[in-house]
Amino acid sequence: MDEHLNNDKIKPLRIGIAGLGTVGAALVLMLEKNAKQIQRKHGRMVKVVAVCARSRSRDRGIDISGFAWHDDPVALAKDENVDLFVELIGGEDGPALASVKAALEAGKPVVTANKALLAKHGVDLAALAEKSGVHMGFEAAVAGGIPVIKTLREGLGAASVTRVYGILNGTCNYILTRMGNEDISFADCLKDAQALGYAEADPTFDVEGFDTAHKLAILTSLCFQCKIAADEVFVEGITAITQEDIKVAAELGYAIKLLGIAKRSEKGIEQRVHPTFVPASSAVARVDNVLNAIILETDHVSELMLSGPGAGGSATAASVLADILDIARGQIIPPLGMPTAELSDYKRAPMQSHKGGYYIRLDVLDVPGALAAITSRLGENNISLESVIQRPDIDIDASGISNSSEAGKTRTLVLITQDTLEASLRKALDQVADDGHTIGAPQVIRIESF
Amino acid sequence: MDEHLNNDKIKPLRIGIAGLGTVGAALVLMLEKNAKQIQRKHGRMVKVVAVCARSRSRDRGIDISGFAWHDDPVALAKDENVDLFVELIGGEDGPALASVKAALEAGKPVVTANKALLAKHGVDLAALAEKSGVHMGFEAAVAGGIPVIKTLREGLGAASVTRVYGILNGTCNYILTRMGNEDISFADCLKDAQALGYAEADPTFDVEGFDTAHKLAILTSLCFQCKIAADEVFVEGITAITQEDIKVAAELGYAIKLLGIAKRSEKGIEQRVHPTFVPASSAVARVDNVLNAIILETDHVSELMLSGPGAGGSATAASVLADILDIARGQIIPPLGMPTAELSDYKRAPMQSHKGGYYIRLDVLDVPGALAAITSRLGENNISLESVIQRPDIDIDASGISNSSEAGKTRTLVLITQDTLEASLRKALDQVADDGHTIGAPQVIRIESF
Repeated sequence: MDEHLNNDKIKPLRIGIAGLGTVGAALVLMLEKNAKQIQRKHGRMVKVVAVCARSRSRDRGIDISGFAWHDDPVALAKDENVDLFVELIGGEDGPALASVKAALEAGKPVVTANKALLAKHGVDLAALAEKSGVHMGFEAAVAGGIPVIKTLREGLGAASVTRVYGILNGTCNYILTRMGNEDISFADCLKDAQALGYAEADPTFDVEGFDTAHKLAILTSLCFQCKIAADEVFVEGITAITQEDIKVAAELGYAIKLLGIAKRSEKGIEQRVHPTFVPASSAVARVDNVLNAIILETDHVSELMLSGPGAGGSATAASVLADILDIARGQIIPPLGMPTAELSDYKRAPMQSHKGGYYIRLDVLDVPGALAAITSRLGENNISLESVIQRPDIDIDASGISNSSEAGKTRTLVLITQDTLEASLRKALDQVADDGHTIGAPQVIRIESF
Repeated sequence: MDEHLNNDKIKPLRIGIAGLGTVGAALVLMLEKNAKQIQRKHGRMVKVVAVCARSRSRDRGIDISGFAWHDDPVALAKDENVDLFVELIGGEDGPALASVKAALEAGKPVVTANKALLAKHGVDLAALAEKSGVHMGFEAAVAGGIPVIKTLREGLGAASVTRVYGILNGTCNYILTRMGNEDISFADCLKDAQALGYAEADPTFDVEGFDTAHKLAILTSLCFQCKIAADEVFVEGITAITQEDIKVAAELGYAIKLLGIAKRSEKGIEQRVHPTFVPASSAVARVDNVLNAIILETDHVSELMLSGPGAGGSATAASVLADILDIARGQIIPPLGMPTAELSDYKRAPMQSHKGGYYIRLDVLDVPGALAAITSRLGENNISLESVIQRPDIDIDASGISNSSEAGKTRTLVLITQDTLEASLRKALDQVADDGHTIGAPQVIRIESF
């Protein structure tokens, strides 16, 4: 084969790592421990030569004295002894962006685990990588230890994805799994997750669905060959999910999961992140705790599921290393699977045109005719009902105290619709609110069928 | 970048396909339908130029008049207009072997879906591909539509696999799933599977576990960097599984699946294919019907599961095409992940040294002291019991007719052992047989814990 490439492979591949948190430290250890195995397998030595982090002295359980030290990640990226730049700093702009750009501009391949950076600048960075003729790997940015990026980029042949969905945030999945197994509120469960290190001190980014949205936007681009459009994702988090929702879901044969879902319709591409009723018998309903899963539906493969750890130092570091080894072998693929110039613009299918089933929970005043009035409003908007539940045993208000059915008190009413247009549902619920038979805002959770 | 490679990419990649069954016909259609998309994505045209099959005139729903025709696959492989040879003939020797060899010897990359060929000649063919400096892809040979080969070869970084197991045969999984859902015998279920096209007229290769063993042997090599040793797999099929086994399993919280399992122990590498008790709550227990699944446990990732269609024309063709597109992009990787010269010899861990739980079902004569005699034999061999079930409600003989407990009749006794050495179990069961309290051979099913 090619002489030039073969000669290149004999030289060691010198790695510079910016960011020595859990993943960075795990990567350093992994490269040391597996150095011989890597050389045996790939015919090339891969070694860390330079690092950069916030603190030089912090104890990370690794010895960094043999590596060149940089205070500035951009300087590390430009270091002439560094062949490949690994960005593990995090953040959508700032030093992460500056250093990745600097590396690519210097004609160096990059591996990053930074989903926020890619969600915002992925297309520009991919274009820069293509221009420089180098690879940019980001397997670890979506679902840490699961090789979904490689699968989408290289594993599907010419199969055309019709829908991609998945559990992309371990924190939310842990909380929803525990709420499903125990009689525990969202708030208490979140506290436990924080104590266990499964949730950040400020959990907003996870529990409000933004983390899932970033990852979904990256998957959407790879699945549908369009530009990344993270700002165009419809996002609802899990903070409003109650025990009551979870119990009714179980009773009706569903589990509640925070899903990221993207699919193509005539109107464009839907990207949605929201708590979702999924059939309890479905594969995704059974992905529990901090596990992640991605399900791909293509025109050739009905359902391909990848599940595994979505985070964790060594699982994520293994994905970073897989990208490094692709580069060590000389792989150069357009980072988004398709040359950026060939990516189509993202065309958002409006959420109002979404069609699906809905779970609706209403606090209804216990007055005669209320149920009839509500169901009439739905009927007027062409919404057919699959199930209606109004029973004392689910008659619990938000504080968890059971109401009696005295006049002036409320009852919980649960409605499950057949496939309905989001616009019709919203209109009907506005009318129901105006009619004055209900208290507070309705709880609405979308149902996804597989 | 490299001029030579870039020039190469501009020329169309000319494909020759030997074998036009379901997969071959699906591949021809897929390449036609996606020609533009492939060129957009990979910057190179990929087109079929020549084919070969048993009958030229058979209606396959595709037009082959534009392709050169060969009666002999070896001639096709040598055709100077063919750049890449796709082998979809099947069979471990004969024309499949001859034509793949001819292509590799002529310096042409090969894509094959032939598990039997690889199980027998994989190492030699990989060595030949390396010698010729070309790639040999075989994604479709294991678990048709699931990209497990790519994941093992490229997706795991330096993670070291500790155990691989999976459901690798859709026919067996369909039969066991139906037996779990309905009160139907193995024989009746097999007849239905044959009628539905899920099982061959001669189902031996599938139901006796040999197909799973071939696939497992390929996975073992990729997981443990050793030579393929398909003859060294311990194989038990599913023909002896009864409704009684399945019902008792369910009652005890297990499902029965035909698993291929490979793991490294101090004694060597265990490769086993057998019906297996798996916890009903485990992910693999929930992979039903004709789906396949592979679970990888590594030192860095606790459990990575890939599940999806294991067969089917278009799912398998999509995997063949993924290999073709890797080659179109210039990928050259040692086919078994590691240069063949670096593969270790396979060292078989003797089945007698296997340690695990066992389900044992015995037909015990209804005489005083029989249970005590049997359990004493187990105790003498250091076998501890997890559960013992002896009850009228499972007191059904092989013909499905309930026995009364009159003297001279038998009762069914089910024992679940704790972790036990296979050698001890076999010794104890021989002693039990000699004691004469039981009728017929015991049913023994291994329990795998996750």
